[in-house]
Amino acid sequence: MSQAPDRTGGPSAEEIAALDAHWRAANYLAVGQIYLMDNPLLTRPLAPEDIKPRLLGHWGTSPGLNLVYTHLNRVIKDRDLTALAVWGPGHGGPAVVANSWLEGSWSDVYRDVPRDAEGMARLFKQFSFPGGVPSHVAPDVPGSIHEGGELGYALTHAYGAAFDHPGLLVACVIGDGEAETGPLAASWHSNKFLDPVHDGAVLPILHLNGYKIANPTVLARLPEDELDALLRGYGHDPLYVEGDDPETVHRALALALDTALDRIAVIQERARVQGAVERPSWPMIVLRTPKGWTGPREVDGLPVENTWRAHQVPLPGVRENDDHRRQLEEWMRSYRPGELFDEEGRPRPEVLRYVPEGDARLGATPYANGGRLTRDLPLPGLAGHAVEVPAPGQSTSEPTQVLGGWLEELMAATAARRDFRLVGPDETASNRLDAVYGATGKTWEEKTYPTDEHLSRDGRVMEVLAEHLCQGWLEGYLLTGRHGLFSCYEAFAHIVDSMVNQHIKWLRASRRLDWRRPIASLNYLLTSHVWRQDHNGFSHQDPGFVDHILNKSPEAVRVYLPPDANTLLAAAEHVLASRDYVNVIVSGKQPTFDWLTLEQARAHCARGAGTWAWAGTEDGTREPDAVLACAGDVPTQEVLAAASLLRRHLPELSLRVVNVVDVARLLPQGEHPHGMPDAEYDALFTRDKPVIFAYHGYPWLIHRLAYRRHGHGHLHVRGYKEEGTTTTPFDMVVRNDLDRYRLVMDVIDRVPGLGVRAVGLRQAMADARFRHHRWIREHGSDLPEVAEWRWEG
Amino acid sequence: MSQAPDRTGGPSAEEIAALDAHWRAANYLAVGQIYLMDNPLLTRPLAPEDIKPRLLGHWGTSPGLNLVYTHLNRVIKDRDLTALAVWGPGHGGPAVVANSWLEGSWSDVYRDVPRDAEGMARLFKQFSFPGGVPSHVAPDVPGSIHEGGELGYALTHAYGAAFDHPGLLVACVIGDGEAETGPLAASWHSNKFLDPVHDGAVLPILHLNGYKIANPTVLARLPEDELDALLRGYGHDPLYVEGDDPETVHRALALALDTALDRIAVIQERARVQGAVERPSWPMIVLRTPKGWTGPREVDGLPVENTWRAHQVPLPGVRENDDHRRQLEEWMRSYRPGELFDEEGRPRPEVLRYVPEGDARLGATPYANGGRLTRDLPLPGLAGHAVEVPAPGQSTSEPTQVLGGWLEELMAATAARRDFRLVGPDETASNRLDAVYGATGKTWEEKTYPTDEHLSRDGRVMEVLAEHLCQGWLEGYLLTGRHGLFSCYEAFAHIVDSMVNQHIKWLRASRRLDWRRPIASLNYLLTSHVWRQDHNGFSHQDPGFVDHILNKSPEAVRVYLPPDANTLLAAAEHVLASRDYVNVIVSGKQPTFDWLTLEQARAHCARGAGTWAWAGTEDGTREPDAVLACAGDVPTQEVLAAASLLRRHLPELSLRVVNVVDVARLLPQGEHPHGMPDAEYDALFTRDKPVIFAYHGYPWLIHRLAYRRHGHGHLHVRGYKEEGTTTTPFDMVVRNDLDRYRLVMDVIDRVPGLGVRAVGLRQAMADARFRHHRWIREHGSDLPEVAEWRWEG
Repeated sequence: MSQAPDRTGGPSAEEIAALDAHWRAANYLAVGQIYLMDNPLLTRPLAPEDIKPRLLGHWGTSPGLNLVYTHLNRVIKDRDLTALAVWGPGHGGPAVVANSWLEGSWSDVYRDVPRDAEGMARLFKQFSFPGGVPSHVAPDVPGSIHEGGELGYALTHAYGAAFDHPGLLVACVIGDGEAETGPLAASWHSNKFLDPVHDGAVLPILHLNGYKIANPTVLARLPEDELDALLRGYGHDPLYVEGDDPETVHRALALALDTALDRIAVIQERARVQGAVERPSWPMIVLRTPKGWTGPREVDGLPVENTWRAHQVPLPGVRENDDHRRQLEEWMRSYRPGELFDEEGRPRPEVLRYVPEGDARLGATPYANGGRLTRDLPLPGLAGHAVEVPAPGQSTSEPTQVLGGWLEELMAATAARRDFRLVGPDETASNRLDAVYGATGKTWEEKTYPTDEHLSRDGRVMEVLAEHLCQGWLEGYLLTGRHGLFSCYEAFAHIVDSMVNQHIKWLRASRRLDWRRPIASLNYLLTSHVWRQDHNGFSHQDPGFVDHILNKSPEAVRVYLPPDANTLLAAAEHVLASRDYVNVIVSGKQPTFDWLTLEQARAHCARGAGTWAWAGTEDGTREPDAVLACAGDVPTQEVLAAASLLRRHLPELSLRVVNVVDVARLLPQGEHPHGMPDAEYDALFTRDKPVIFAYHGYPWLIHRLAYRRHGHGHLHVRGYKEEGTTTTPFDMVVRNDLDRYRLVMDVIDRVPGLGVRAVGLRQAMADARFRHHRWIREHGSDLPEVAEWRWEG
Repeated sequence: MSQAPDRTGGPSAEEIAALDAHWRAANYLAVGQIYLMDNPLLTRPLAPEDIKPRLLGHWGTSPGLNLVYTHLNRVIKDRDLTALAVWGPGHGGPAVVANSWLEGSWSDVYRDVPRDAEGMARLFKQFSFPGGVPSHVAPDVPGSIHEGGELGYALTHAYGAAFDHPGLLVACVIGDGEAETGPLAASWHSNKFLDPVHDGAVLPILHLNGYKIANPTVLARLPEDELDALLRGYGHDPLYVEGDDPETVHRALALALDTALDRIAVIQERARVQGAVERPSWPMIVLRTPKGWTGPREVDGLPVENTWRAHQVPLPGVRENDDHRRQLEEWMRSYRPGELFDEEGRPRPEVLRYVPEGDARLGATPYANGGRLTRDLPLPGLAGHAVEVPAPGQSTSEPTQVLGGWLEELMAATAARRDFRLVGPDETASNRLDAVYGATGKTWEEKTYPTDEHLSRDGRVMEVLAEHLCQGWLEGYLLTGRHGLFSCYEAFAHIVDSMVNQHIKWLRASRRLDWRRPIASLNYLLTSHVWRQDHNGFSHQDPGFVDHILNKSPEAVRVYLPPDANTLLAAAEHVLASRDYVNVIVSGKQPTFDWLTLEQARAHCARGAGTWAWAGTEDGTREPDAVLACAGDVPTQEVLAAASLLRRHLPELSLRVVNVVDVARLLPQGEHPHGMPDAEYDALFTRDKPVIFAYHGYPWLIHRLAYRRHGHGHLHVRGYKEEGTTTTPFDMVVRNDLDRYRLVMDVIDRVPGLGVRAVGLRQAMADARFRHHRWIREHGSDLPEVAEWRWEG
C-alpha cells in the first residue's frame, strides 16, 4: 500500500463516525430494497408478508458502491467540487438508489417517494418490482449516465464526460469483473487523450472485491507487483486502500481520496498555469474490500461474505425459511437503523453531515442530465459547401470530402464553445474528412515527432484504433450535454452493436422520464462501405449495421442513405440538429455522381423518398409500367444507368425512378414515426406494378420494412448477398446482381407484353455481363463503357 | 533493452547473410505483388504496361512480417519445432504470401503458381486482382488461421490454437495498431488460462512499427518504462529488439528468439517434469522497426519510410508517373534480385537455407488446416439424459441443466483426447450447465483460496468476463482441429457480432478451397434469454443475434430454437457432430414444460418444423380454420396455453399447432439449404388460412424469411418489440403481446364467422389481461391461473 507521503493526518474519529453512519444507512437501504415490501424500519419482527415474493437484485457490489458514494460526498462538500460519478458495477442498483434517496435527489424527481418512512417503504417495494425501478443503475436513477447492465464501458463514459469540461471531476468505479472485458481493458489508455488544460479529470477507482458471478476475478488474484506494474503501465499512479475493518478502510479511503485530489489539483495547475506539456501520471485508487461486505458471513453452512455467493441475493429463502428471515433481520439490525433514521424514517443529521447541497449532489448534478447543458450547435450554412449541379449526373464529387469542408466550418464555429467532437478509428483522413484539420487537430498527449501532422494536445478530432473507445467516449460526451459525429468503416460498426443497443435502450427509457432532458443524438457516418472495399475485400463488406439499428425502438432510430454529396450535406445538417436519436448515415467516400442541387437535396431529404421525374419516362396520363427504386449511392448509380439504357432502347416503356433516402419511410405509419401512409406509398410505388428496388444492403431488409404494403407481391429487391472479394467496384455489383444490366433484365422479366425489342435488349444485357467477366480477368479493371458512363438526360 | 544474460554468441555473419537473403527475397516478392503484372524478374526496365492498373495492398507492415517469418523459419529448422504463426497485421497479405511461395507451400496447393519465373508472374498478378487472391491474409493463404481484415483477435486466436496442443509453439505477431483495440487489450491476460503442462506455448511478438493508417500508435509512443511496466503487468517478461540496420536487427532478433524459446523450454520442463504450479512469466518479444522499412524514404518530397505514409502503396502513380516508376525499379533492385533468384526465377539455395521441410513449414502445418486434425467427438448417447415425458406438458425441466448432464459425460469422454472445451463469460453455472464440473474444472492458473470451487490448472471449462476472449479462444481452438461450445447470455452475444461475421466469412471462403478440410462448427448456446431476465431487465433483453446470423452466407449458418429439454439435447447432439457451420441454439434455463419424448424430439429436430397434432383440433377432413405456430420455448408455452383455451371454449374451431425448431426452414428452398419446398410449406401452414405465429425474437424476422410464401398475406407474427423492464415472466409476454390471451384474441380476430361464443371469449381474454395488470402491481407476481397453468390434453 502506498499513500501520499505528505499526509499523515486524515479524518478525526468523529468524522469517521459520520462517514460510517452514512455508509451504514446506505447499506441498510440497499438490503431493504432487495428484500422488503413492508416494515421498512423494522418496527416489528420481520414476517413472511414483509418479504417480496421474488427476490431480485445484486448485493455483492453494493457495500463498495455505498462506501465510495459516502466518501465522494465528503470531498465534494469539503472541496466544493463539481463532480460526476460513473458506477461501472451498475448491477448494484440498490446502492446508488439508496444514496440518491439519502441525499434527497431521488425525492426531488419522484415526489411520491419522500425521505420518510412512507417513502422508504415505497423505495423498498418499487425496486425490481413490476412497474417499479429496474435492478440496475438505469436512466431512472438520478445522477446516472451509465446503465449498469452490459459491462465494459464505464471508463470510456467517464472520459467522454470529462472531455471539454475542465471544471469537472469524474469519479469512475470499475468492478474487477468489468475490468476483464475488452473495451474496459483498452479504456485505460484514454488518459493519452485527456488534455489537462481543456478537459476535466477522471479518477478511476478499481474496486477489487474479488469475485464475479461464480468465479474469482483475474485482477484481484494477480500478484501485487504485477497489478502495480499493470496500472503504472496504463499511465496511472495508483493509491491502494485495502481491508475489511470499516474504520481502517474509512480512514485509508479518505486519505487516498484527499491525496488523489491534491495530485489532480497539482497536475491541473502545472498544465494550466505553468504550461507543462508532458502527459502526467494521473492518480487512481485501488479499493480492495470483500464482496458482500457486512452481509451474511455464512448461509446454510457455506461461506458467503467475501465469496462469489454474495453476488446477488445472499439469503435466498427469506419468505419461506424462518432461519433465513431471522438472519436477514439480524443483518439489517447490525446497521443500527435506530441511530440512522428518526421515528418518521427521516435520515438523522449525523448521517447527512457530508451530503452536499443542491446541484452539487451526485444525484442532482446537471452533468448527469446532459440535456440541461446541451445548446444548439451553431450549424454553418450549407450553401458555401454544396456542389453546383447544373444538370443531374454530369459531374462527380466525393461526398464525405464535401462534408469535411462543412465540418471544418463547424469545428471552427465551436472552437471556443468546445462542444463538438469528431471520433473515428484512425479513419478520418481515409474517410476524406481531413478538411477538419484546418480548424482543429487530433487529440494527442504523447510525444510527437517532426514528421507528425495535425496532432495537438487540445484537438477535437479523436482517433484511436478501437471502435469501443470511439463509441464510449462519444456516448459520455453526449450524455453530458455536447454533440458529436462518429465516422466509421461501415462493416466495423458491428464492433459496437452491443454498445449502441445499450445507448438506444438508455434513450428509450429516458424519453419516458419527464425530468430527463433530451440530449444530442448519436450520429454515425458509415462510409468506406460494402461496395467500395477495393483495398480490403470480403472481410470489410457488411452492410448489416442498419438492420441491427432498425431492430431497435423505432422512436429512437433513424437511417439515411443520401445518394450524393448535396444530400449528404442536408442529412448531416438534419441529424446534428436532432435530439435523442441514434442516426445512421451511410455514404461513400469515392467519387459519386451529383444528382441534386442543394435545394433539391434538402427537399428530397426532408421527404425521405420521392420520384425523380427527370429520370423516368412517364407521361403522366397513367401509372408507369415499372418502378425502378433505389436507396444508397451505388444502387442509385446503377438504377440511373439502367434507366438510361431503358430510355434509349425501350422508349415505349413507361418507367418511374424513385429514390429513397430514409428507409424507415417504407414502414407502415404505425410502426415508425417516419412510416408513410399507405396512400402515399401506393402513389409512389403503385399498388400492382413491378417495383425493382436496388438497395445498398441486405435485400431482405426492404421486404421486412414493406411486407404489409399493397404492392409487396410485386416488389423485387436487389442488394448485397455476401458475394465479395478484393475486386473492382463494378464487379462487386455484378457479383451481387445489383448491376445496371441485371436491373434492366429484371424490369424486362417483370413487365408483360414488351415485345421483341425487349427480348433483344435482354440478350444484350446478358452479353454485357459476360463481356464484363472476360474483360476483368484480363485487365483487372472495369469495362470502359462502365468506367466512362454518365447520365444522358 | 534486456537480453538473455546467458547468451552472448548468436548467429555467424554467414548465417546472418542467409537470413538477410530470405528477407530480401520476401520483400522483393511483396513489392512485386503490389505493383507488377509482368516483368517479375526485372529482366528489362519497368514499363507502364508492367504495372497493374489498380494499385492495392499494404506495404507498411510487410517488411516486419517478412522479418519474423524469416527468423521463425530458422528456429523451426534449428530446433525441429512444431510451430504455427498468427499474423495479426494480416493486411500485410503480400508478405505472408511471399513467404509461402518461397517455402513452396503456395505451389503445393496452387499448382498453377510454381516456384519459377512463370509462377512468380502469376503470383504478382493474382494479388488483389479480380479473380485472384485477396489483399489480406485470408483462407486462401496456406498456413493461416487468421483473417487479417478486422483487427483485435490475433492473440486470442493464438491462445485458442495453443490450448491442448502441448507440443505446439504459436508465434503471434501483434501490430501496434491492433494493440489499441479492446479485444486485443484484454487478450494479454489469456496467459492466466494457459496450462504449461497440457497446453502449448504462445510467443507474442509485439511489432511496434509506430504508425496506423494516418496516426502514430499509442504503444509505440509510450515512454519505455511505461511500456515495460505494462507488459510485465500483463504477466510477460519482454525481450526488446530494435533498430533500422538490418544486420543489427537480424542479430538481435535471432538472439531474442533463441532466448525466448530457451525460456519456454525451461518453463515447460519445470511444469511438466518438476511439477511447478505457479504461473510462469512467459517471454515475449517487442520488435521496434520502421514502418515500410527498406521502402522509399521519400516520395514527392514527403517522408514515407517510418511514417504512416508507408501504410498502403507508397508510390501511388507508378503506371503514369515516370519518376515514381523509376523509384519503384530502384527500390525493387535494392533487394538485388539477381542474388536471390536464378534465371528461371527459382529461389537460390542460399535464400532457402533456413526454410523447413514438409509439414514443418509454416505454410504447410496441419495446425493451420485444422480439418486435417479434427476427429469426430465421442458423443454420448442421449437416452441416459433425456427426461421422461409420458404425456406432453405435464412436467417441467430446466433444459440447460439437462444438457449439462450430457455435456458432463462428453467432457469425461474427452478427458484423455482433450479436444472439447466449453467457454463462457462467467455464466456456466448461471446458465445451469454446472454438471460439467463433475468431469472437469474451470481453467485457472492464478492463486486459489480454500473457498474456491471447481478451479483447476487443466480444466476445460473456460470462464472469463470477456465475450471477445471466449469467442476468439474458441475460434482458434476449432480452426486448429478441435470442438467446442460457447454458452452466452442471449443479449450479449451481440458483443461478438463482428467477430462471428469474420468467422463466417472465413468458413464461406474456406469451403471454396478444396485443400482446406472442414472444421468443427462454432456452436452457440444462447440462454438467459430475452423472456427470462427477471434479475436484470431491459438492458439484458435482445434476441437479435439470430437476425444478425441469418444475414450471413446461408451455406454456413444454422439456427435452432428447441421448445423443450429433449429437443435441446437432440439439437446439441446434431450441432456437435456438424462441420463448417456457425450453429446458434436458443434455449432457456428456467423450468420449461416437457413436450416431446426423446424419440419425438429427435424426429422433430430433424424435420425442423412440424404439426403437433395432439395439440390441435383438426379432424383431418379439411384444412384447419387457423394455425397457431411457435418457435422458441416461451412462445411454445404461450401457444399451447392459447390452444388449450381455444379447445375448451371454442371446440368447434379447427385448429392446428405448428412448432418450428429450425427457422431457416421457412426460407424458400433456393435461399437456404434448409429452406422447405413450397408444397411442404403450404401443407404445413396452408395457403390461405390465418397463421398466428408466436416467435421468440423480433417478429419481422419471420416475415423476412417467409415473405415469398403463398400464405404470407395471412401470416401474423408476435414477438419481442423492445418492450421490457425488470418484471415477471408473464408480464414480459403481455407487454409484447405474445401472451396466451392475446394469441386467442388474434385467432378470433382473424377467423371469420365464429359467432357469439367467440365474442364472449375475446372479451374474457381482454379481461384476463386487465386482471393481470392489476394483480402484478399489487402482488409483484403472476396471476395464479398463469403460474399454475399446465397443458390439458
